[in-house]
Amino acid sequence: MALRPLHDRVLVKRVEQGEAQVGGIIIPDTAKEKPQRGEVVAVGNGKLLENGQRCGLEVKSGDVILFGKYSGSDVKIDGVEYLILREDEILAVLG
Amino acid sequence: MALRPLHDRVLVKRVEQGEAQVGGIIIPDTAKEKPQRGEVVAVGNGKLLENGQRCGLEVKSGDVILFGKYSGSDVKIDGVEYLILREDEILAVLG
Amino acid sequence: MALRPLHDRVLVKRVEQGEAQVGGIIIPDTAKEKPQRGEVVAVGNGKLLENGQRCGLEVKSGDVILFGKYSGSDVKIDGVEYLILREDEILAVLG
Amino acid sequence: MALRPLHDRVLVKRVEQGEAQVGGIIIPDTAKEKPQRGEVVAVGNGKLLENGQRCGLEVKSGDVILFGKYSGSDVKIDGVEYLILREDEILAVLG
Amino acid sequence: MALRPLHDRVLVKRVEQGEAQVGGIIIPDTAKEKPQRGEVVAVGNGKLLENGQRCGLEVKSGDVILFGKYSGSDVKIDGVEYLILREDEILAVLG
Amino acid sequence: MALRPLHDRVLVKRVEQGEAQVGGIIIPDTAKEKPQRGEVVAVGNGKLLENGQRCGLEVKSGDVILFGKYSGSDVKIDGVEYLILREDEILAVLG
Amino acid sequence: MALRPLHDRVLVKRVEQGEAQVGGIIIPDTAKEKPQRGEVVAVGNGKLLENGQRCGLEVKSGDVILFGKYSGSDVKIDGVEYLILREDEILAVLG
Repeated sequence: MALRPLHDRVLVKRVEQGEAQVGGIIIPDTAKEKPQRGEVVAVGNGKLLENGQRCGLEVKSGDVILFGKYSGSDVKIDGVEYLILREDEILAVLG
Repeated sequence: MALRPLHDRVLVKRVEQGEAQVGGIIIPDTAKEKPQRGEVVAVGNGKLLENGQRCGLEVKSGDVILFGKYSGSDVKIDGVEYLILREDEILAVLG
Repeated sequence: MALRPLHDRVLVKRVEQGEAQVGGIIIPDTAKEKPQRGEVVAVGNGKLLENGQRCGLEVKSGDVILFGKYSGSDVKIDGVEYLILREDEILAVLG
Repeated sequence: MALRPLHDRVLVKRVEQGEAQVGGIIIPDTAKEKPQRGEVVAVGNGKLLENGQRCGLEVKSGDVILFGKYSGSDVKIDGVEYLILREDEILAVLG
Repeated sequence: MALRPLHDRVLVKRVEQGEAQVGGIIIPDTAKEKPQRGEVVAVGNGKLLENGQRCGLEVKSGDVILFGKYSGSDVKIDGVEYLILREDEILAVLG
Repeated sequence: MALRPLHDRVLVKRVEQGEAQVGGIIIPDTAKEKPQRGEVVAVGNGKLLENGQRCGLEVKSGDVILFGKYSGSDVKIDGVEYLILREDEILAVLG
Repeated sequence: MALRPLHDRVLVKRVEQGEAQVGGIIIPDTAKEKPQRGEVVAVGNGKLLENGQRCGLEVKSGDVILFGKYSGSDVKIDGVEYLILREDEILAVLG
């Protein structure tokens, strides 16, 4: 069973802190809005502009991304926790 | 008797948590703004853009959607409770 | 004596709760922002878009609509109470 | 001495509640934002749109209008009290 | 030494209340945001629209205007107090 | 070492109050948001409009400007204090 | 391992205060929102305008920039701390 995010939203599977240290990323505990890491699982069709054009997202499935700690909404599918974010809440892509 | 939502609104019939577990979706009790699940019953004609164009919705009748717990307005028709949401409050479509 | 609403406003005559139950609509007392029902009596010429185009309303005289409890402004004409709403405050049309 | 309102503003002379009842309009005392009645004395050239177009007002001198109690700014010219409103604060035109 | 206001700003010399009564304008003491009167001394080149067009002001040097009591910023040049307002803060022109 | 402001920002060197009185400008101590005076040292390329056009600034290096007391951010380069303002925070140009 | 910022964001490596004094920049301790200095490491593809056009950034890798103290989000990659800013939070470029 799949989840298709709407518009400029993306479905993200969080990557554990332990894994993050393997890749060299350490997110400080003291930061107020801690950036966090996840893998993009699905993306929406893009944001609708005021001229009627739909603008595809810059991220795609498989991308590993950083986002703020309190961004998005948590959902659980088949026992796995996911996060639904707007693309604007994504800080950067690792690559 | 039918309800036709206006513009970018959708009419939604909530799906019970019990059903949700059959499909594998579990929504955590502790989440502040709990995502929830429903079936789209009717959709509006779409959002009016500033260039005068009307943009049809990405969801259609029959779609099962996730949305935040406190989204939308509740109404009851012929003894059945419905929810009226803006499309922007829909997090994702299951499919 | 008639009232002509401006722009995207509509003039609405509230429909009593008693009538609402005949049609099958029951609005729960506990809802914080109770949707309510009314009949459209007159509509404005539509919203002015930033490109100078005026966009006619989706509702017309005679439509029965649902709206939130605290929406709009109350006026009384010839002893009858009316409500003036923006079209954006209309949740749905019964049809 | 005349006052010419700017842009989308209108100059309004309030109509007394006593007169209002002759015409059949009664505004409830308990309403939080009481709609009120006035006659348009002068109108601005209209609102400037983002495309550079100026959009004339829907109301004209002589129109009797309804507006919210706390709308606009009061001024007194030659001993007569007037109100300066934006057109958007006008609820409806009587006609 | 002259001051040239930027964009949609105007430079205004306040007109005393005493003078105002000669012209017949009386501003009530009890009004929360008291409209006030001044003479336009200089105007900016106009507001920049999102389409790159610059829109000239509706007021010009010499115009006597009304504005809210707490509008704008006070400056003093060669011992004379002036006010710098945005055109949108001007309620009306006397003429 | 030079500082190039971005977009619609300008780099400003404050002009002392003492100098201001020579030129005749006195800024009252009691004003809540005291306008202040400075000389433009460098300007950005201009604001980006929604149509993709970049709009050059109305001020240029050497202009003496007035701005609100709490506007902008202070920086120090080679021991000299500067201020970085958005053009929209500039009230007027002396000329 | 690299980080690619999205849209109008930039990845920045902070420059120590010690280094800053060599170059002559001193940022006062008392300023409420202290400007700070950093080197741009990577930039996004630019901001998406409402007409569908993407607008490249004014800064590029290697630029030394000033920004407010509380701007952006901190991340750590391979033991080095970085900052992710929106271009709009950049005050100026040194050079």
